[in-house]
Amino acid sequence: MGDTPAIGVGMLGYGFMAKAHANAYKTLAYMTWPPPLRPELVAIAGRDEPAVAEAARRYGFADHVTDWRALIGDDRIGLFDNSGPNSLHAEPTIAAAQAGKHVICEKPLGRDAAESYETWQRVQATGVKHMCAFNYRFVPAVRLAREIVASGELGEIHHFRARYLQEWGATDAALWRFDKAAAGSGALGDLAAHVVDLARYLVGEIEAVSALTATFQPGREVDDAVEAAVAFEGGAVGTIEASRFATGRKNALSWEINGAKGSIAFDLERLNELEVYGAGPPSPRSEGFRTVLVTEADHPFWEHWWPAGHIIGWEHTFVHELHHLLTAIRQDGDVAPHGATLEDGYRAAEVCDAMLRSAEEGAREGVTYRGRG
Amino acid sequence: MGDTPAIGVGMLGYGFMAKAHANAYKTLAYMTWPPPLRPELVAIAGRDEPAVAEAARRYGFADHVTDWRALIGDDRIGLFDNSGPNSLHAEPTIAAAQAGKHVICEKPLGRDAAESYETWQRVQATGVKHMCAFNYRFVPAVRLAREIVASGELGEIHHFRARYLQEWGATDAALWRFDKAAAGSGALGDLAAHVVDLARYLVGEIEAVSALTATFQPGREVDDAVEAAVAFEGGAVGTIEASRFATGRKNALSWEINGAKGSIAFDLERLNELEVYGAGPPSPRSEGFRTVLVTEADHPFWEHWWPAGHIIGWEHTFVHELHHLLTAIRQDGDVAPHGATLEDGYRAAEVCDAMLRSAEEGAREGVTYRGRG
Amino acid sequence: MGDTPAIGVGMLGYGFMAKAHANAYKTLAYMTWPPPLRPELVAIAGRDEPAVAEAARRYGFADHVTDWRALIGDDRIGLFDNSGPNSLHAEPTIAAAQAGKHVICEKPLGRDAAESYETWQRVQATGVKHMCAFNYRFVPAVRLAREIVASGELGEIHHFRARYLQEWGATDAALWRFDKAAAGSGALGDLAAHVVDLARYLVGEIEAVSALTATFQPGREVDDAVEAAVAFEGGAVGTIEASRFATGRKNALSWEINGAKGSIAFDLERLNELEVYGAGPPSPRSEGFRTVLVTEADHPFWEHWWPAGHIIGWEHTFVHELHHLLTAIRQDGDVAPHGATLEDGYRAAEVCDAMLRSAEEGAREGVTYRGRG
Amino acid sequence: MGDTPAIGVGMLGYGFMAKAHANAYKTLAYMTWPPPLRPELVAIAGRDEPAVAEAARRYGFADHVTDWRALIGDDRIGLFDNSGPNSLHAEPTIAAAQAGKHVICEKPLGRDAAESYETWQRVQATGVKHMCAFNYRFVPAVRLAREIVASGELGEIHHFRARYLQEWGATDAALWRFDKAAAGSGALGDLAAHVVDLARYLVGEIEAVSALTATFQPGREVDDAVEAAVAFEGGAVGTIEASRFATGRKNALSWEINGAKGSIAFDLERLNELEVYGAGPPSPRSEGFRTVLVTEADHPFWEHWWPAGHIIGWEHTFVHELHHLLTAIRQDGDVAPHGATLEDGYRAAEVCDAMLRSAEEGAREGVTYRGRG
Repeated sequence: MGDTPAIGVGMLGYGFMAKAHANAYKTLAYMTWPPPLRPELVAIAGRDEPAVAEAARRYGFADHVTDWRALIGDDRIGLFDNSGPNSLHAEPTIAAAQAGKHVICEKPLGRDAAESYETWQRVQATGVKHMCAFNYRFVPAVRLAREIVASGELGEIHHFRARYLQEWGATDAALWRFDKAAAGSGALGDLAAHVVDLARYLVGEIEAVSALTATFQPGREVDDAVEAAVAFEGGAVGTIEASRFATGRKNALSWEINGAKGSIAFDLERLNELEVYGAGPPSPRSEGFRTVLVTEADHPFWEHWWPAGHIIGWEHTFVHELHHLLTAIRQDGDVAPHGATLEDGYRAAEVCDAMLRSAEEGAREGVTYRGRG
Repeated sequence: MGDTPAIGVGMLGYGFMAKAHANAYKTLAYMTWPPPLRPELVAIAGRDEPAVAEAARRYGFADHVTDWRALIGDDRIGLFDNSGPNSLHAEPTIAAAQAGKHVICEKPLGRDAAESYETWQRVQATGVKHMCAFNYRFVPAVRLAREIVASGELGEIHHFRARYLQEWGATDAALWRFDKAAAGSGALGDLAAHVVDLARYLVGEIEAVSALTATFQPGREVDDAVEAAVAFEGGAVGTIEASRFATGRKNALSWEINGAKGSIAFDLERLNELEVYGAGPPSPRSEGFRTVLVTEADHPFWEHWWPAGHIIGWEHTFVHELHHLLTAIRQDGDVAPHGATLEDGYRAAEVCDAMLRSAEEGAREGVTYRGRG
Repeated sequence: MGDTPAIGVGMLGYGFMAKAHANAYKTLAYMTWPPPLRPELVAIAGRDEPAVAEAARRYGFADHVTDWRALIGDDRIGLFDNSGPNSLHAEPTIAAAQAGKHVICEKPLGRDAAESYETWQRVQATGVKHMCAFNYRFVPAVRLAREIVASGELGEIHHFRARYLQEWGATDAALWRFDKAAAGSGALGDLAAHVVDLARYLVGEIEAVSALTATFQPGREVDDAVEAAVAFEGGAVGTIEASRFATGRKNALSWEINGAKGSIAFDLERLNELEVYGAGPPSPRSEGFRTVLVTEADHPFWEHWWPAGHIIGWEHTFVHELHHLLTAIRQDGDVAPHGATLEDGYRAAEVCDAMLRSAEEGAREGVTYRGRG
Repeated sequence: MGDTPAIGVGMLGYGFMAKAHANAYKTLAYMTWPPPLRPELVAIAGRDEPAVAEAARRYGFADHVTDWRALIGDDRIGLFDNSGPNSLHAEPTIAAAQAGKHVICEKPLGRDAAESYETWQRVQATGVKHMCAFNYRFVPAVRLAREIVASGELGEIHHFRARYLQEWGATDAALWRFDKAAAGSGALGDLAAHVVDLARYLVGEIEAVSALTATFQPGREVDDAVEAAVAFEGGAVGTIEASRFATGRKNALSWEINGAKGSIAFDLERLNELEVYGAGPPSPRSEGFRTVLVTEADHPFWEHWWPAGHIIGWEHTFVHELHHLLTAIRQDGDVAPHGATLEDGYRAAEVCDAMLRSAEEGAREGVTYRGRG
């Protein structure tokens, strides 16, 4: 690694997402060997000085600051990692890009499509590499699914149905995630946005949505659940759901794709597995959904890990994601199509906005992407 | 059984459903012991004489006829069993009731809500017992689910999501199920109607729907798939889907209910199991979805069957259903709430019609039940 | 069915097994169409007159008797069905055969290998068709497994491991199954015998066993559990277990076979499914255990039943089994290899005896079959 | 972490296990916060200089050496981590302990019980902390299982059955794992040893074994599979199996415990889940195996990780294991009972040796532990 150039990382935020990103930078430095670039943790920003100082000590950032603007002016920093709350996505991300730093921003990119579009446009104009942290694209089973769909093995796609279910919504806690000004929306931006990104990544653009939202907790500003029927440009139809009120479901992002010749299904709580039904077994009499344990040496990302059957966890998706971004930076290559760019972040927001409009107006809403050629 | 009174059965149809009903009459006579009434298979009607004669020999009907009207005038018949195609549901069922015969009619009750309403109203006016054959209410696990919901153990219900997926739709065969005049609709009336009935049985009335339909097979008159977001009167929201184009899914009716205190999930292909998540295990640290094998002596309908773990099949739902109907006839009791009446058949049709309207007009549609007090 | 000849059935026993057999005779008469022979339920024998009279009324036997010898002398009876307790297997079965009746006898054939051998030898000498009711050979998924193994698709077989687990053993009830004189053994003859038969049917003859037994219930005469390491003549090794003390396991007969090129696994509580791992999918990257829903038209026995995905239950195995026996009788064909003969009943007993000897003596025991060419 | 004392780590080996241990040292330094001790990677030893130099660069060891003896004499090293092949377990581990270093040694501790006993005895005499790296004790679900058993919630334990199945054995590669001198045994020491340790950890001491072994690959010196019936001192009985010839099974360590009042089951390929059946749900009618997703804040080890449902992987067991060891060192506390000591390493070897003797001699073998009070 003596030959591997370094890249300085400046991080905004020190909470849940920051922990996941910091772990990924540290892990990829030796697990993906040799790494594309050697991350140096330069500085971390947060408003609570004792807390951000502790985070710096914990994860090994050289410095800590209480104003994110200090990161923008820090020449040691080549990559700005925005792991802060939704309301701090746009301005710092744009500023960092305009200062010439590559950027990765947590999802949802903005609190609505307009803010997301603005962020994408202004960052794109700078020419830096940019990524929206839709980390579930980097589950090995999801990448494998993408490859299977792309191969044509499933035939024409007829259905995509997905749900992202959690159970912790029934609480009186005053979290920023329940604050409309800070979060933009509730289960929609937090959970459904992930599903929308996977829908786009796996099946293609969504053309129209018919949605309902529900808020179960009295006094809450944002949606607790969203339910939508969706139609894709390619002809597929399906449903997308997200809820924070699905008792017993911890982090249950599951989806199924049905094509004319085969089907695939996935469940994030068993993320090392992919269910595949398709043409080809020795005898049609023994056809059935195959539980593929996506842990073989020739499976996506497995060159970095362990022998077959030695499963990985949720946090590993960030290792793959940041490895992908550093590779694009090092090679001056494209983040797309496997990494989500800020354009993908914007497009997911456009679909989420259409769901909100549909829910409010009781009508099917078309999805129109701004800036589409 | 010498003491058990007999009831004469006249059946319309000799296909798939007729086989299931005939088997149920014959089986309940000794498996539910003593049976509420002793079914005597009097006559079976169908237009193809050699085929209906063969069916009579096979299932032990004393006579066979080629005009269903002959059943109406047959005084030996006390129960008219309509297992014919959708277009032959209304007129024969009404005629039989008006002739004083109890009636059971296969689902969907009519080809649309209007026809279903007419059938229900005219049959109800006669005072006979009437049932719409939504047999999935008679899966032991479904009845157990209903009891769990009714007990309040799950708390307020937030979500119902269900799908009924089959895979055989990509065919050029000219089946009556693809003929709009004969069937009324496609996956909607055939599959989604079952889901709608279960939604109503388990969670309550549906208030509004936002739906899409799709027809994948070129030239087909009816829908191949329907996708809907739904809202219930009680405040729950969710999705309902049905498709004949879900490759690899054979008869996959699955649903999940999330309540404030617990959840239940079901899959018809594993119909002896119910997944239950709820308050109460010894330690919250070992809480999780329980796979309840619904085969114990104190489970619904199990007094008729086998020791625990000796599972039953799909056809047994008809044994339970007809046992329920014969009990209501014998005791002059109510078919509702556990049996679906023709009113339930009508209400399911009203929801299905709302889905069609929503799909056509691109707007959320309210569900208004005619004849509601 | 007017053309189908009848066969008179005389049954010994009116309990659990008799219910299963009676249901099967009645069901096969119309579900397997046309049936190979038309079963006429002539007479049923049991010592408790009111109970056996009730059973006759319930299942439709023309007569009932309190001494099984009356069945032997009844010329209307062409098939003697022994569904009585283990201690009444040998003498009545031999007597019936010597009276020229075909015989089916519940498992285990005898209380030990000597009794089983004697029964087999004396019945075989009469030339009648004979069957030992190892009904799990007639699960569609088990027959499919046999066909897959026989096809060579799995390659050389390395492992067979199986367990039959129930949970009801901790009881003070004085059942005949706990009485050594009546039952011969406990979990061994009741449960392990089924596993041994499947091992032989699927993999081949067992050569040696190293076993332990345990009796957990104080004062019980028979084994509550048996644990064995086993070696097959063909080179495979594995384990066989059976217990009545496996809390939470209702009727959990599960097994797995590993071959050089593939594997199969089965669980009786999900008897419509077979797990298959094997060469051939389109891409090795999507290889995995396939959950085959064994309910297609071209699956074993499915010509008698329903469309794909409409599952059958435990009791259906008896329909297939008796259909197989009646076919052999009608066509003067062989019961073997798919049906278990009394020789198979004897051989299973020989393996079970070896397990008992091994458990008692603390040594590996070879299995030697008497009368082997 | 400024206040946390450091401990110097010297590692023997740079292969698969070394990668897992190195990752764990690096990860625990920030994921378990504050860590009990701050690991400093001082030096790594291996015979292939370029390879070990690369490993040092990759994982951040300050130095590398080609003779493990250099580690023994290095005063900076407080913990000797033996991740080398089996034949290099005894001598270096003993030497390190005698030099006053704490030791952790990969399993199996020795190539047979005698070597393992010697290692344990000589290390124990030095007074250092010692651990045998049976990492599966540190799966959260396994620890939870131990707590459930210890609580008495399952009642008296009747059964333990376990299998560790892999599929890669059919190879001509000349691995040290196939070399009797280097490895001692095959699937036995590699896989079955893990199972034996879990059996002892969860249920208690094994009293007797009846075993078979098989070698399927022509010319191979060591066993490819072992099959055993086992009896525990506490009265439970069961089976233990291990194989490298279980086609389709990648890293399938699964076990089930049945007690008088409940049962637990586990599968390493879904290591975030524990199946629990036990007394206590709201209604006996909804009793069933609960799939507990062992990812809650109050589950074992989860204070270090993520929100519920965000699963961890195989490698995390090493983080927990080394965290446990460092805590014992820092606090001068006991490694036992949750960590395996070298005594546990020895005892597992004693059981494995008994299996080999049983397989060779065809007799049940008692297990006698040397040095037992």
